[in-house]
Amino acid sequence: MSSHRAPETAHRSRRAHRAILGATLELVHEVGYPRVTIEGVAARAGVGKQTIYRRWPSKAAILRDAVVSLTEDIARAGGAVRDTGDLEADLKAVLRSAVDTMTDPGYDVPARALVAAGIADPALGKELTARLVEPPLRLCLERLGSARGAGQIAQDVDPRIAVLMLAGPVAQHWLMGDGPLTHEYTDALVDLALRGLAPR
Amino acid sequence: MSSHRAPETAHRSRRAHRAILGATLELVHEVGYPRVTIEGVAARAGVGKQTIYRRWPSKAAILRDAVVSLTEDIARAGGAVRDTGDLEADLKAVLRSAVDTMTDPGYDVPARALVAAGIADPALGKELTARLVEPPLRLCLERLGSARGAGQIAQDVDPRIAVLMLAGPVAQHWLMGDGPLTHEYTDALVDLALRGLAPR
Repeated sequence: MSSHRAPETAHRSRRAHRAILGATLELVHEVGYPRVTIEGVAARAGVGKQTIYRRWPSKAAILRDAVVSLTEDIARAGGAVRDTGDLEADLKAVLRSAVDTMTDPGYDVPARALVAAGIADPALGKELTARLVEPPLRLCLERLGSARGAGQIAQDVDPRIAVLMLAGPVAQHWLMGDGPLTHEYTDALVDLALRGLAPR
Repeated sequence: MSSHRAPETAHRSRRAHRAILGATLELVHEVGYPRVTIEGVAARAGVGKQTIYRRWPSKAAILRDAVVSLTEDIARAGGAVRDTGDLEADLKAVLRSAVDTMTDPGYDVPARALVAAGIADPALGKELTARLVEPPLRLCLERLGSARGAGQIAQDVDPRIAVLMLAGPVAQHWLMGDGPLTHEYTDALVDLALRGLAPR
């Protein structure tokens, strides 16, 4: 019997976990992060408050896991960096996809609340960097590495600085709302960056 | 008599204003923004709470004015963009100066708290962009404009995208703490950006 019951319990547990993360994202989007409460998340997810408190020490910790999980889902669904052999097309595609994600209110509002919390709290900020920022940067770095291997960018370019020249302006526009976050903008960014990266 | 008393009152008022902004910066640095209270600021500044409430509607509004005022002081004291004719040297100098400012805890801690508040609150974010981000970007834009006039950068480069390729990565490193915020890093950034900007 126990060998039958254990998977069922694990399944219920995973379902509750997903319901709590989903409820958190919805509520942040609907009422704003400051007004989200553990009670509200429990009610929306259909679980008891204790189920939440057993898993997470704080509202910020739930938001962190919810946004990380959403980001990973988006990356799996097609936000990854392709290698078609055409560096310009691949970089434009990944930045366009990032813009689409960032301008979707279902992602934008919770992720922005989380980043704000991470800027105010350096320990959380370091964790967010490791879990949200580093993985996509690493994929872009690998793509630039293969482009360098193919002789498409200069050997003496530091690929990490090149990646940050693409990611930094997009992140700044997203966070500060100080410019158009459009495909035209990220295409122009890629065009200008590639001029500097080209073999001389 | 009134013509004598009025300037004295204005002088006292300005002194109180400066004391309140200075006390706010000190307290945010010492105990962190969430633990700063209007009572604490009033006590440190040597003014009554009502003096503060008459001028500012909220703690965030005081922090905004304190950081904006500090930023303007720093810009006046030498953080501005020079035009020596040597674009590379001028861009390196302004980014080095920005790094020095951002890594000074007396600036870093309050400014980071303010930016976090601005990311969570889009209306405040827009105001911060206008008062803190746009002025230095505009100075860099002017410097690139004069470089283009002097034939040092290609005519078909969009100077705004070029400026953001320099400012964006620095802002991202500062806010996310995900890399070395050093003179070596910003120098390398300028070197790589200028490769892309050079006339072809």
